[in-house]
Amino acid sequence: MTSSHSVVIDGLQYANWSEAIFSQFRDGDVDAVHVTIAYHETFREMVLNIEAWNRRFEQFPELIFHGRWARDIDLARDTGRTAIFFGFQSPSPIEDDIGLVEVCHSLGVRFMQLSYNNQSLLATGCYETEDPGITRMGREVIKEMNRVGFVVDMSHSAERSTLDAIEISQRPIAITHANPASWHGALRNKSETVLKALGQSGGMLGLSLYPHHLKGGSDCTMRSFAEMVAETAELMGVDHIGIGSDLCQDQPDTVVEWMRSGRWTKDVDFGEGSKEAAGFPPQPGWFRDNRDFAKLAGGLRAVGMSDEDVAKVMGLNWRRFFEQSFERQEA
Amino acid sequence: MTSSHSVVIDGLQYANWSEAIFSQFRDGDVDAVHVTIAYHETFREMVLNIEAWNRRFEQFPELIFHGRWARDIDLARDTGRTAIFFGFQSPSPIEDDIGLVEVCHSLGVRFMQLSYNNQSLLATGCYETEDPGITRMGREVIKEMNRVGFVVDMSHSAERSTLDAIEISQRPIAITHANPASWHGALRNKSETVLKALGQSGGMLGLSLYPHHLKGGSDCTMRSFAEMVAETAELMGVDHIGIGSDLCQDQPDTVVEWMRSGRWTKDVDFGEGSKEAAGFPPQPGWFRDNRDFAKLAGGLRAVGMSDEDVAKVMGLNWRRFFEQSFERQEA
Repeated sequence: MTSSHSVVIDGLQYANWSEAIFSQFRDGDVDAVHVTIAYHETFREMVLNIEAWNRRFEQFPELIFHGRWARDIDLARDTGRTAIFFGFQSPSPIEDDIGLVEVCHSLGVRFMQLSYNNQSLLATGCYETEDPGITRMGREVIKEMNRVGFVVDMSHSAERSTLDAIEISQRPIAITHANPASWHGALRNKSETVLKALGQSGGMLGLSLYPHHLKGGSDCTMRSFAEMVAETAELMGVDHIGIGSDLCQDQPDTVVEWMRSGRWTKDVDFGEGSKEAAGFPPQPGWFRDNRDFAKLAGGLRAVGMSDEDVAKVMGLNWRRFFEQSFERQEA
Repeated sequence: MTSSHSVVIDGLQYANWSEAIFSQFRDGDVDAVHVTIAYHETFREMVLNIEAWNRRFEQFPELIFHGRWARDIDLARDTGRTAIFFGFQSPSPIEDDIGLVEVCHSLGVRFMQLSYNNQSLLATGCYETEDPGITRMGREVIKEMNRVGFVVDMSHSAERSTLDAIEISQRPIAITHANPASWHGALRNKSETVLKALGQSGGMLGLSLYPHHLKGGSDCTMRSFAEMVAETAELMGVDHIGIGSDLCQDQPDTVVEWMRSGRWTKDVDFGEGSKEAAGFPPQPGWFRDNRDFAKLAGGLRAVGMSDEDVAKVMGLNWRRFFEQSFERQEA
């Protein structure tokens, strides 16, 4: 059942979690957030991250709780809290074991990227020079994710693998945090071909506020961002876009090093950064943290988007997508 | 909500699971079974056992499903299937990590023995010569199990540790599979002191049909067993006993070797057996497998137990206990 009141849902964050940030969720009226709980972790290491979240849920029950189903968005709204939905940025936590897909779903994980920058067992990442597409295991894992209600996320994947995933998956997929490459030509941003295929298949794009994904980086204006949102709505259909802020608040730069280099290189990989600017870039002033979602909604209205469309982009589309995605598929 | 129709619940089994055994559940009208999914496994190894169960649930959806809550007993009855509830016979799957208690509960595990024959990190097993009682970590784990809705099971624990657990636990505990030592003096059977304390604290005893726990072993008569049940009802209160058959159907003897010796000895530990009779003992003819629960109920009536009391012992008591035990404790 979909109720019609508006909600605020963020399609991706990875902050240095604290009571201060959870209070900002509340100040910003954020009803639900998809948070990253693994980059390169093994299954057992990822479970330690779930344990850390369980302690946060126990410590701050007035602010946050573990969201498992779409209805938890309404529970969050009704109880003045924020529902936290778990996701992986790479498939490392399922190791080489397809049985872990269902196990992770039982643990309440709802999103998994099939690759993160590099080639994985399942798909190719956006920084590889060759992209042979979805692998044999990748096809099996997509089928299993479809069965149990686990969203395929291709945010850090390469073009062909992404198009393959859209085609192979029987349920709509997501790109939880990226922008159109036509607006800002970063390897992490997506081509029109990908975005059109994503929209036509019923999938979702979470528009990113991470400076490396923004035209002009940290100096990007709200107007430029909002115009891009309106254009992407034209391209994909306004029902297929939301926000995926990629907020990485309060993280030390060692964290972006872990995200980029994991254990796969002995050198340093600078990813979207560079040797000269290796750390997290500063957020633009109009979107510093979770308290700025209302400002962002205002920015979208200022470029002529209707109240109805703004409500869709700020949360209603993600809610519909959560409703369609997390339950087990009927046999 | 407790409905009043009778149900059949078995408080412990560890069979060599197969379609044939699941069909016998249905032939015997067994609504719910607590099954062992770990003896000495690490967390990751235990997860492999959950994966094997997930494949069985996928393969035989007309016969079985994963039971997580007391209401699943009624779902089983209403849909003509058997609800499978998971449990550990030792705390090895939580390793040295109290955070795994909640993680395992999220995975649908509902029972954990604090020790299995030997000393564990939490409690002493029934074959140790010294029993120093519940350990420091044991106290913390009991508190955490109480919080999340995970049943403390002391079936293979030593006397003092068991009495400690009854006292420390804020929620009633279980001894899922054992008999009174006064009837058959095995180290695995329980003293009157333990049984009285268990009943007075609202706990449950699952009466065992494993031959090493029976007076006369495999030659035990149904009448002798039924008289023992009636006497135990007198001792503990008829609301505090059920069945915990400890059926180990179709298992090769290598499995009882794993149960007894795990990885803790390079020698062979014969446990309740002996060098001359090391394997699984044969079941008594009147309780061979899951098809014999109705026969057992008849045996209880034959020694004068009322229909109402028999219904309690065959399942209603376990259902009430499940209702009281699996949900998270109100803060």
